Amino acid sequence: MTERAKPTTAICDYTADAIYIRDMSLVDDLIGQVNFTQMIYFQILGRMPSDGETRILDSVLVTLMEHGMTPSAIATRLIAMSAPEAMQGAVAAGLLGVGGQFVGTMEGAARILSEILDADEGVESAAARIAQRYRDDGDRLPGFGHNLHRPDDPRTPKLLQVAEAAGVDGRYISALRVLGSAVDAAYGKHITINATGAIAAVLLEIDVPWEIMRGFAVITRAAGLVGHVREEQLNPAARHIWLTTHDEIEYSGAALKK
Amino acid sequence: MTERAKPTTAICDYTADAIYIRDMSLVDDLIGQVNFTQMIYFQILGRMPSDGETRILDSVLVTLMEHGMTPSAIATRLIAMSAPEAMQGAVAAGLLGVGGQFVGTMEGAARILSEILDADEGVESAAARIAQRYRDDGDRLPGFGHNLHRPDDPRTPKLLQVAEAAGVDGRYISALRVLGSAVDAAYGKHITINATGAIAAVLLEIDVPWEIMRGFAVITRAAGLVGHVREEQLNPAARHIWLTTHDEIEYSGAALKK
Amino acid sequence: MTERAKPTTAICDYTADAIYIRDMSLVDDLIGQVNFTQMIYFQILGRMPSDGETRILDSVLVTLMEHGMTPSAIATRLIAMSAPEAMQGAVAAGLLGVGGQFVGTMEGAARILSEILDADEGVESAAARIAQRYRDDGDRLPGFGHNLHRPDDPRTPKLLQVAEAAGVDGRYISALRVLGSAVDAAYGKHITINATGAIAAVLLEIDVPWEIMRGFAVITRAAGLVGHVREEQLNPAARHIWLTTHDEIEYSGAALKK
Amino acid sequence: MTERAKPTTAICDYTADAIYIRDMSLVDDLIGQVNFTQMIYFQILGRMPSDGETRILDSVLVTLMEHGMTPSAIATRLIAMSAPEAMQGAVAAGLLGVGGQFVGTMEGAARILSEILDADEGVESAAARIAQRYRDDGDRLPGFGHNLHRPDDPRTPKLLQVAEAAGVDGRYISALRVLGSAVDAAYGKHITINATGAIAAVLLEIDVPWEIMRGFAVITRAAGLVGHVREEQLNPAARHIWLTTHDEIEYSGAALKK
Repeated sequence: MTERAKPTTAICDYTADAIYIRDMSLVDDLIGQVNFTQMIYFQILGRMPSDGETRILDSVLVTLMEHGMTPSAIATRLIAMSAPEAMQGAVAAGLLGVGGQFVGTMEGAARILSEILDADEGVESAAARIAQRYRDDGDRLPGFGHNLHRPDDPRTPKLLQVAEAAGVDGRYISALRVLGSAVDAAYGKHITINATGAIAAVLLEIDVPWEIMRGFAVITRAAGLVGHVREEQLNPAARHIWLTTHDEIEYSGAALKK
Repeated sequence: MTERAKPTTAICDYTADAIYIRDMSLVDDLIGQVNFTQMIYFQILGRMPSDGETRILDSVLVTLMEHGMTPSAIATRLIAMSAPEAMQGAVAAGLLGVGGQFVGTMEGAARILSEILDADEGVESAAARIAQRYRDDGDRLPGFGHNLHRPDDPRTPKLLQVAEAAGVDGRYISALRVLGSAVDAAYGKHITINATGAIAAVLLEIDVPWEIMRGFAVITRAAGLVGHVREEQLNPAARHIWLTTHDEIEYSGAALKK
Repeated sequence: MTERAKPTTAICDYTADAIYIRDMSLVDDLIGQVNFTQMIYFQILGRMPSDGETRILDSVLVTLMEHGMTPSAIATRLIAMSAPEAMQGAVAAGLLGVGGQFVGTMEGAARILSEILDADEGVESAAARIAQRYRDDGDRLPGFGHNLHRPDDPRTPKLLQVAEAAGVDGRYISALRVLGSAVDAAYGKHITINATGAIAAVLLEIDVPWEIMRGFAVITRAAGLVGHVREEQLNPAARHIWLTTHDEIEYSGAALKK
Repeated sequence: MTERAKPTTAICDYTADAIYIRDMSLVDDLIGQVNFTQMIYFQILGRMPSDGETRILDSVLVTLMEHGMTPSAIATRLIAMSAPEAMQGAVAAGLLGVGGQFVGTMEGAARILSEILDADEGVESAAARIAQRYRDDGDRLPGFGHNLHRPDDPRTPKLLQVAEAAGVDGRYISALRVLGSAVDAAYGKHITINATGAIAAVLLEIDVPWEIMRGFAVITRAAGLVGHVREEQLNPAARHIWLTTHDEIEYSGAALKK
């Protein structure tokens, strides 16, 4: 066997009568002492959040849980119908849609906000430059625009308000607002700051790095999808979706004519 | 197109300027008003939990989040290494292990507790009968025994204590305790009530039906696995696991000798 | 570290200049020498199949690859739209539907055929007994009936014919036919032997145990789903499925009226 | 309901007594007539491959099926142990590792070969320019180098030889060889063309576009992973991997000392 340096973990260890998570006793210090939101932050970021940080994370998780019959929700329902004995597979199927097209924009927005704050030229100049760059390239600017929530995404002001009431430093939120003005100027019209843009800003305010942001969407979407599994158990829709899709998508070949 | 009755959903709908989840306004009634645990219960079970129910659900979610280098955590880390650009795949891979061998026992325990309470013969008699049946058949009794936490699982008394302090009816917890005594009698030795047994009882106390219990394990394990993805980003272990496994599992064929 | 017996693997090992799979050299003995179907059988069952066995396995894999806009295909398309950068996730999402409701029946049919052949009472008597048991219990008999392909599943006679032409012992096929007659007698009407029933029989003929049968469906469905990913790249349908589903499944709450 | 243009599918349709796949009858034209490899090509690319194309695709699928205790194989085994009732989940878990780090390089290599052939400057000049660009940027060049198979990947010459014997146009293979020489020159040492580089070239030769290449890896890895599920059923290793990992990865916290 090759010798190689052994990695370590700071997350968890246990004996026959105790379980430690990041050096806190699961039984003595965590169960009954902290709520799920605090525990999530503690598990992922390695420190217990303040009350304000917890409220902000709550607002993000509540916002992202559910948005109706999304592609993920439909996928979960179809798989729940096909393999009802393995609920974890149905939820996993839907979670696989938490990718580039929807939540990927959250990471993109977070990187832009960080770029704006790190720029030597100052926030306003950096925001204007970036807005113009996206405008010129014709690329979709992460965190801006929404195909449905127009002219404004109603979640955005609420998320920012909750964060400010909870007491944050505010520089990422401020950068987002400056960018919003720069975007309106560059595009010559109002483009909404969408919920993923606002979430990027408030998660940065509570020290969540962009590299793991998607993970928070995965967690709360898991809860949303379990809700769809439950409704599918009680009031199934998947068979209807299946048959409707079969009827809707016509075969373009010559062999069969419906 | 075939005519067929259209199913409905009670979960979510939206317009351009409002999102409703089970008839509450996401922006006006939920974000900043309820925490993640309340929102999870509301999404899945369709009513807002009481403060006591919320504390109980918190205790369950905190308990199940993390248990070290489990098969699920290892799978998540290996997939995070292989496809770091798709974190949702890494979490999904680990969640696929939330199946029969580990959390499946929670559902089994919940069904047994319900059977005990529904029996005409009374709780004590039903518990004794069921304990003896498992003893005679040599089947593993769901919710009892643990390969590590012996003689007692430390999570169990804490979970029951949190639930009782939160104010529950208590009949499922009581049935679990009666069953525990019956098990000790039937097997002629003490067998611990494990955490999944306790969780089954306290989730039944807060009206979570056994059919959807696994979903709560999926949600909190998702958070645990995001923690492992984050540690893998900062302090990777997956490559070591891979190479160690390659060294450990020897090829039994004749073609190569290491 | 605890000492424990190390497991072994008979599948694969490699050095810097050779890769061995089950003691055959990948480069010298397999690439360019065997086709994919032979390699699949060799990988899973540990011996190279005969030409007849290969033809039979081909017929099964060809049969199961594709059946239109199935729940799995729809799930794959929706996830491909949501996370186009991670095709493996889209295929995995669809594969998660290869569960109890559809391919699970193949395993059930295989177990019944084995039970019939293992019975002391003789094939005809066992078949009649089993058919009657399902009839009395009102359970769905695995391998029989089809919601669309009525009165007969056209794939069944073709699969049996290919297997017989390829030269099999024939006892599982014979047991299936005897069971088919017993089913018609027990139910008092003709019930088709469906494709999963026929596949169960012909896979048993080529020594595929029921415990791993589902794996062959997973492999060929993976290919089918890659076809749907490709069509989604060229001629997308997922967005239409999404929006149609949103329109079709009406919100039952009071808050919003469309 | 919003009116929107209905998409179509060219893949499959069926009636009660016939199933058509791309206008060929499944029962009359495909089962028993074409093998699995032909069917895969037909399903994904929409035309039946020639005998030579089939042999080349066979060589690729045989090459990529299995490479021992890879991260994907380990993930599949761990999930198979955790949820043995849902084999599709175990295979899906492993497939989620068919991402950027391993097979992603196949797509990268295919894009480079296409760039070389499309360049106005000629193949040799373009190859030299690209090799130098990767050298200067310090990026890993897709399709080149291998951490184990040194100085040369034994699969590469075999794959190219099978393709040339099967009768291809040869321009992608030729571009790959030119690039190989340019790489050796730019880096001042020999760097092997690895199997993913060779596979990129031979798949381009048979008209597989880079956008769907990963799909072929997914299909054959599914078969490889079913082999690991089968071995896990007969000769389990997952529990050993789990316990060894737990022992190997030491807890870095202060709370517990092993």
